[in-house]
Amino acid sequence: MGEKLNERANGVYIIAATPFEDDGRLDLASTDRMVDFYLECGVDGMTILGIMGEAPKLTPDEQQGFMRRVFDRIAGRIPVIVGVSNPGTNNLAAFAHSAMDAGAAGVMIAPMSGLKTEEQVVNYFAETLRILGPEVPVVFQDYPQVTQVPVSVATLRRIFDDHPQIVMLKHEDAPGLRKLGQIRTWPDTGGRRISILVGNGGLHLPQELRRGADGAMTGFAYPEMLVQVCRRFFAGDADGAEDLFDTYLPIVRHEQQAGIGLAIRKEILRRRGVLASAAVRAPGPKLNADDHKELDSLMARLEAKLGG
Amino acid sequence: MGEKLNERANGVYIIAATPFEDDGRLDLASTDRMVDFYLECGVDGMTILGIMGEAPKLTPDEQQGFMRRVFDRIAGRIPVIVGVSNPGTNNLAAFAHSAMDAGAAGVMIAPMSGLKTEEQVVNYFAETLRILGPEVPVVFQDYPQVTQVPVSVATLRRIFDDHPQIVMLKHEDAPGLRKLGQIRTWPDTGGRRISILVGNGGLHLPQELRRGADGAMTGFAYPEMLVQVCRRFFAGDADGAEDLFDTYLPIVRHEQQAGIGLAIRKEILRRRGVLASAAVRAPGPKLNADDHKELDSLMARLEAKLGG
Amino acid sequence: MGEKLNERANGVYIIAATPFEDDGRLDLASTDRMVDFYLECGVDGMTILGIMGEAPKLTPDEQQGFMRRVFDRIAGRIPVIVGVSNPGTNNLAAFAHSAMDAGAAGVMIAPMSGLKTEEQVVNYFAETLRILGPEVPVVFQDYPQVTQVPVSVATLRRIFDDHPQIVMLKHEDAPGLRKLGQIRTWPDTGGRRISILVGNGGLHLPQELRRGADGAMTGFAYPEMLVQVCRRFFAGDADGAEDLFDTYLPIVRHEQQAGIGLAIRKEILRRRGVLASAAVRAPGPKLNADDHKELDSLMARLEAKLGG
Amino acid sequence: MGEKLNERANGVYIIAATPFEDDGRLDLASTDRMVDFYLECGVDGMTILGIMGEAPKLTPDEQQGFMRRVFDRIAGRIPVIVGVSNPGTNNLAAFAHSAMDAGAAGVMIAPMSGLKTEEQVVNYFAETLRILGPEVPVVFQDYPQVTQVPVSVATLRRIFDDHPQIVMLKHEDAPGLRKLGQIRTWPDTGGRRISILVGNGGLHLPQELRRGADGAMTGFAYPEMLVQVCRRFFAGDADGAEDLFDTYLPIVRHEQQAGIGLAIRKEILRRRGVLASAAVRAPGPKLNADDHKELDSLMARLEAKLGG
Repeated sequence: MGEKLNERANGVYIIAATPFEDDGRLDLASTDRMVDFYLECGVDGMTILGIMGEAPKLTPDEQQGFMRRVFDRIAGRIPVIVGVSNPGTNNLAAFAHSAMDAGAAGVMIAPMSGLKTEEQVVNYFAETLRILGPEVPVVFQDYPQVTQVPVSVATLRRIFDDHPQIVMLKHEDAPGLRKLGQIRTWPDTGGRRISILVGNGGLHLPQELRRGADGAMTGFAYPEMLVQVCRRFFAGDADGAEDLFDTYLPIVRHEQQAGIGLAIRKEILRRRGVLASAAVRAPGPKLNADDHKELDSLMARLEAKLGG
Repeated sequence: MGEKLNERANGVYIIAATPFEDDGRLDLASTDRMVDFYLECGVDGMTILGIMGEAPKLTPDEQQGFMRRVFDRIAGRIPVIVGVSNPGTNNLAAFAHSAMDAGAAGVMIAPMSGLKTEEQVVNYFAETLRILGPEVPVVFQDYPQVTQVPVSVATLRRIFDDHPQIVMLKHEDAPGLRKLGQIRTWPDTGGRRISILVGNGGLHLPQELRRGADGAMTGFAYPEMLVQVCRRFFAGDADGAEDLFDTYLPIVRHEQQAGIGLAIRKEILRRRGVLASAAVRAPGPKLNADDHKELDSLMARLEAKLGG
Repeated sequence: MGEKLNERANGVYIIAATPFEDDGRLDLASTDRMVDFYLECGVDGMTILGIMGEAPKLTPDEQQGFMRRVFDRIAGRIPVIVGVSNPGTNNLAAFAHSAMDAGAAGVMIAPMSGLKTEEQVVNYFAETLRILGPEVPVVFQDYPQVTQVPVSVATLRRIFDDHPQIVMLKHEDAPGLRKLGQIRTWPDTGGRRISILVGNGGLHLPQELRRGADGAMTGFAYPEMLVQVCRRFFAGDADGAEDLFDTYLPIVRHEQQAGIGLAIRKEILRRRGVLASAAVRAPGPKLNADDHKELDSLMARLEAKLGG
Repeated sequence: MGEKLNERANGVYIIAATPFEDDGRLDLASTDRMVDFYLECGVDGMTILGIMGEAPKLTPDEQQGFMRRVFDRIAGRIPVIVGVSNPGTNNLAAFAHSAMDAGAAGVMIAPMSGLKTEEQVVNYFAETLRILGPEVPVVFQDYPQVTQVPVSVATLRRIFDDHPQIVMLKHEDAPGLRKLGQIRTWPDTGGRRISILVGNGGLHLPQELRRGADGAMTGFAYPEMLVQVCRRFFAGDADGAEDLFDTYLPIVRHEQQAGIGLAIRKEILRRRGVLASAAVRAPGPKLNADDHKELDSLMARLEAKLGG
């Protein structure tokens, strides 16, 4: 079993897709290939069964099967975070414990859709962590565009202050640059310096690194870019990092479209030989001929720039 | 196995609670008692594992266990509809088929949260029913206050026209009186006369019956009122039906509060000797001392009126 | 000029409709008649140009014209609160100052739609009150069903603590009974005892009075009921108050339907001889024949009960 | 008076900011300078008083004053579209008529916030255009991220079929690429070929042009880029157009952040000598030191690339 996640986590934690066959069955062979691919890209960690991993469309048995296959293939080389958000807290906790037993470094939880006030968010995390127990490291996923639960900096501060086991923020509020900067000032007033990895496909990654992010946790289909950008930045070459990022920005932006973005991302991974099929489970988007042609052009333009 | 649900369904289909022990475990003894209670109240059908049945907080195994216990106890005396809404369509279909195999009369599906346009709703039902197959009778649950998916009358018409297997509308849009009347005019223009049962705790039941509803599908904790109101109305005594309804209206209104309403409903069932515990699974509301006192007063007032 | 609004305000502050001719022009003759009617009903105060007063559909000149007509007719007999919510803060402040100059007791402000986090709500009120100045008494309208801005008790506490000029809460969050009770405990921890008047058509008025409300601020078309219920309650007859309320509850519930409720309310006022026309400005709901027939029945049933 | 807007409109219709002094007063001198700047950039048209023009924060008198100043300065050289969205339809129509009298080519209307079903959107436009009269050319602004009113392609088709006076779609749904392509197929089934100009800061402009857009209507602070991209594209150099676009993409993306984007846009215009002040009216965002530093870097990087 690997080390537990802590506040010093940094670099690129790739959000893993969940590979399916064309007919929607779990594709475990592609799962192995995908894990190998991510490792070759140099990622520092991996997050599975997140929102982009189509977790709610898997049965508990499928979630277990996929999770165990990933752990087997990784064999402890990098830490793995498991998304455990669930409408029922008992089921959330049971799955989190099985993930930790299987070797997870921590679990990721987003505020449940339907929470209205920030007091309710505070209470939701208090109750959930009480049931989960204090031993499980937790990533707070702040993603109001999807959860419909906005959380202000003051409320995040309170939740992180109350619960030392929450060691990382997956930062994907938007706009989010100022928010990120404000969270980084917490140590000035007795608060914690937590790990912050950014999501949203990395759309603002260079700016977020300059604001104090520790890296990215997102599923961009060219993980090698994310890895190199972070390495250059932390080696002191912020402008070189941003130059590389900007080369990929047209595709970052294209992948970042809500809904269809997941289908685009899986199709790029398919074209790159990682996945056997780009299938997204129903209900989900499918690319049509125009979408494919558009992607042809964007990928060809990227290759031309990289080759130049 | 019972008869399949069809467009002539009417009367009171009670929405069943899912009974838990204080610690959150399924309470199958209370399940039996609850089924007996509903049957003694004279309900015409039952709906289990709906939104109010806390279905998303149950594991698939728990859903199966609860469902089978209900079917065993009912033993075919009344038709049962099973809520099968699910973020993944394959899982939705698999559970629907197991429900039909176990003896369900039909299944209930709400448009998935996250659908934005009405075209997406049309496509969602087309794709879902394609995967489900044409043999399963379906109830369309129109509940935008919870799903966040408003559906106009024209779109409902299109979906019901396209899919004869959808035989019933669970009508709980609000405001909804005019919408109900408009749906009732479909036969004037070549459309279907579907079954319409109303939800929302029955808050507007007398008006809805006058507008053409066939009954109620809701979980009000005094089902005998729903049953008597419908019987009186269909026996031609609309005013007598409304008099009885108005006697219970203060509690109908009190139960109809979002969120806490479920806790109130379960507590009334507990006080009436139906459930051993009023527990709602986390995350969920709990009554405090003030809430209990308030309910004491409302229930005492009702008893005084009924006794008078 | 009348006295300024303070924390001891109580009783019934009726929300005034804005009367229009059938063609949508302001109807100032009906305005006079409406003011007289409200005064005859015994209301303790009046609120004009609120959400139900169709304020955003009036030009600034029309708002001034209507406001001045109301002030002239009332002639200082009861305090008047003026709704001043506005997408632009400078325009909000300018109109608020003209209202105070004309004799208003205070102004009502709701958090602007589009605010996402509670920090933003706190900042919105701080900035707005800075521009408004400390002399204007303010009512905080907490109406998330319309504003889409939920505000928790802790945030309300902070805003009321920070700004002594906010003297009243228009309480219409739903569900809201527990929230009301929690606000009433503020004095136990060094907080203020503010005035709380409840909205939402008074749907839960008896329960809200028992929880500590000081009265109602709503536009129910039978204001005499609101007045008598409050008087009986504060005279110590909580059950008598609730008996009277329950008699009107079927219409309270009917009027409380979102959107069409305003058209129903204006139609009842028209039938009672208060308004010359029930017109709602476009875009707005219109009653059709079925809606009228339904209202006939509900009003006849009420009269029968009151006559009995 | 200029020509009326029609379905053949194309190119870049710049969305004009509304310039304010630091204290929030209208800045008419900057208005002149801004108009000159836009004309020098080669824009084909202009849109004023849109959502980004802070129109709801202006009084009707201020809207008139700003509008007349713009018309005077333009002196008929390019067509001007005036945003007239308003919570009240009579006020909408009155302002639209005064805009047309003053020389507008057409007006822009978005579905009013609060509309729930697409039937309501259809009815809203029918009623609004009935009051507006058939002579006023209309742009339909499809911007659900702000209006919260999603509209499907079928509903757009119906509205455009019903109302020949609606000649242009401001396309800013997101994701929107497939939607744009679907609208372009209308002529294949007897529908109209309307003008489509894209918004959203132009974030997907090269893809949207390839999908059939006629140009852009957005307020990007480097309008010369939008102009050159459209010219190159329509001259047959799609790749050259996209190369130029990609050079500016880092700032397009940065400006496209909700809320703070307007403050960034105005600040760039200030730095470029167009506006005297970057002030946004309250309630509105303000840049802080970190935001400025970030913008320094992004603008310097752009200049370096352009200079290279």
